[in-house]
Amino acid sequence: MIPARVKLVEVGPRDGLQNEPGAIPTATKVALIEALGTAGLRVIEAGSFVSPKWVPQMADTAAVLAALTPRPGVSYPVLVPNRTGLDAALAATGVEEIAVFGAASESFSRRNTNCSIDEGLGRFADVVARARDHGLRVRGYVSCVLGCPYEGAIAPAAVARVAGALFDMGCYEVSLGDTIGTGTPAAAQAMVDVVAERVPRDRLAAHFHDTYGQALANILAVMDRGIAVVDASVAGLGGCPYAKGASGNVATEDVLYMLDGMGIETGVDMAALLRAGTDVCRALGREPASKAARALAAAAT
Amino acid sequence: MIPARVKLVEVGPRDGLQNEPGAIPTATKVALIEALGTAGLRVIEAGSFVSPKWVPQMADTAAVLAALTPRPGVSYPVLVPNRTGLDAALAATGVEEIAVFGAASESFSRRNTNCSIDEGLGRFADVVARARDHGLRVRGYVSCVLGCPYEGAIAPAAVARVAGALFDMGCYEVSLGDTIGTGTPAAAQAMVDVVAERVPRDRLAAHFHDTYGQALANILAVMDRGIAVVDASVAGLGGCPYAKGASGNVATEDVLYMLDGMGIETGVDMAALLRAGTDVCRALGREPASKAARALAAAAT
Repeated sequence: MIPARVKLVEVGPRDGLQNEPGAIPTATKVALIEALGTAGLRVIEAGSFVSPKWVPQMADTAAVLAALTPRPGVSYPVLVPNRTGLDAALAATGVEEIAVFGAASESFSRRNTNCSIDEGLGRFADVVARARDHGLRVRGYVSCVLGCPYEGAIAPAAVARVAGALFDMGCYEVSLGDTIGTGTPAAAQAMVDVVAERVPRDRLAAHFHDTYGQALANILAVMDRGIAVVDASVAGLGGCPYAKGASGNVATEDVLYMLDGMGIETGVDMAALLRAGTDVCRALGREPASKAARALAAAAT
Repeated sequence: MIPARVKLVEVGPRDGLQNEPGAIPTATKVALIEALGTAGLRVIEAGSFVSPKWVPQMADTAAVLAALTPRPGVSYPVLVPNRTGLDAALAATGVEEIAVFGAASESFSRRNTNCSIDEGLGRFADVVARARDHGLRVRGYVSCVLGCPYEGAIAPAAVARVAGALFDMGCYEVSLGDTIGTGTPAAAQAMVDVVAERVPRDRLAAHFHDTYGQALANILAVMDRGIAVVDASVAGLGGCPYAKGASGNVATEDVLYMLDGMGIETGVDMAALLRAGTDVCRALGREPASKAARALAAAAT
């Protein structure tokens, strides 16, 4: 059942960097995205068109996009929360894909986007339709698929409803996010099985956070249920394991190490990926939050 | 196929502490072992009778054993490398179980124990027979089951040969150790399947190191092949993830978090386990190398 080939979706430059403290120069972001493209990643989240009041780290997304080398077959999706964001994305250079997001938890939706799940989906229906009219692909995210910081456990049916709505409105792929990282393998499999009744498995992606150390086990578990797209963040960007409230994106290097070891094709080169992670970490003044990256570096010396 | 119940073997006080820098007071070790027993662990490696010239951290094992509260149903195995070690174990208080070890790698065996695999097994046959004559249970360890620092990949047949020899000489359980942590799930399953042709699955234990971040995924993978005994080290003792050459024992808290989430019975109480880990880490002046422990502590504040 394990897929022979997995598509890695690199979320470090957006989901990762937006959670890093301190201003990051545009050139650092561009260098990171270029290095990830060189490493063989074919989908690299490049930024977001969100109010800089809320996410100052992403205020230079248009400048980042303008500086990128176009690469055939490589997509640089940007996150778009609303019509204003979509307009900015359409005005920017080289945007072929956007991402929109919904939450599987009513409380999380209200606290983070100030609207109910259904109100949020209603707004996105318009954004997605307009994006597709302009020839953009749209990726959907569902957050809190295995737990919510306010509600605790989340019913798989609630995840399926939101994922199904995003798929129905035209998202070509729906990424299932364990935002707080509390999920474990059996729950992850059960959730995927329920969601797959609404959205085909080959249109689903796994987005696991390693906050509780469970990400790789969960990824393995859902690959065994036919999931062949995995989101990850180079060097574990966005999740500092040493800080409280770490977001804890699973590190791309750790995922790739497992997939390489299992003979699963990704098209991504580990040595080049390690360089991308090492370089951005040096620029940020931190250590890679990837055990595989640290162990491979130690083994090489 | 996933077992309904898993036995956790706590190796922190021995395999963990022996790799910690700096002298550790006997009282700290005793307090740790007592706290682990209180948490519900039923097999707790308490030390080793190895020359203090080689492993100074374990020189006080007899004093540790003498200070422990006997607990019905709780075993405190000690590692014994040879006849001299066995004599010391037999002279000590309360030893009911010893552990012996072999390597699946010829180079590793020669470099670490200065003898070939077969010479090592020959010595142990005598130790095991004598231990059993004295009514002791014996647990066997095989190291380098998924890779060797000198030889690289290790053939599953080589692991099966050593595991089979330990089982045949009277070890009631054989623990398969991924000493350098390079294993990945498919290789772990393939190895277990080959070893299971020589040793029944219910006599095998999984001993994974998290050096490359793969331990939980590997544990999940081999549980799916019928392995129901898992070695782990509270707070990830013995593996400092921030240092080069970290041994990287998987943290008991991370394993328990996964098993609890999957509804697999262990008899171990997470809150009490967290206290055991927090207390020993405070005594050692370090942070727990367990993501689950850190995340649960952060969530509790």
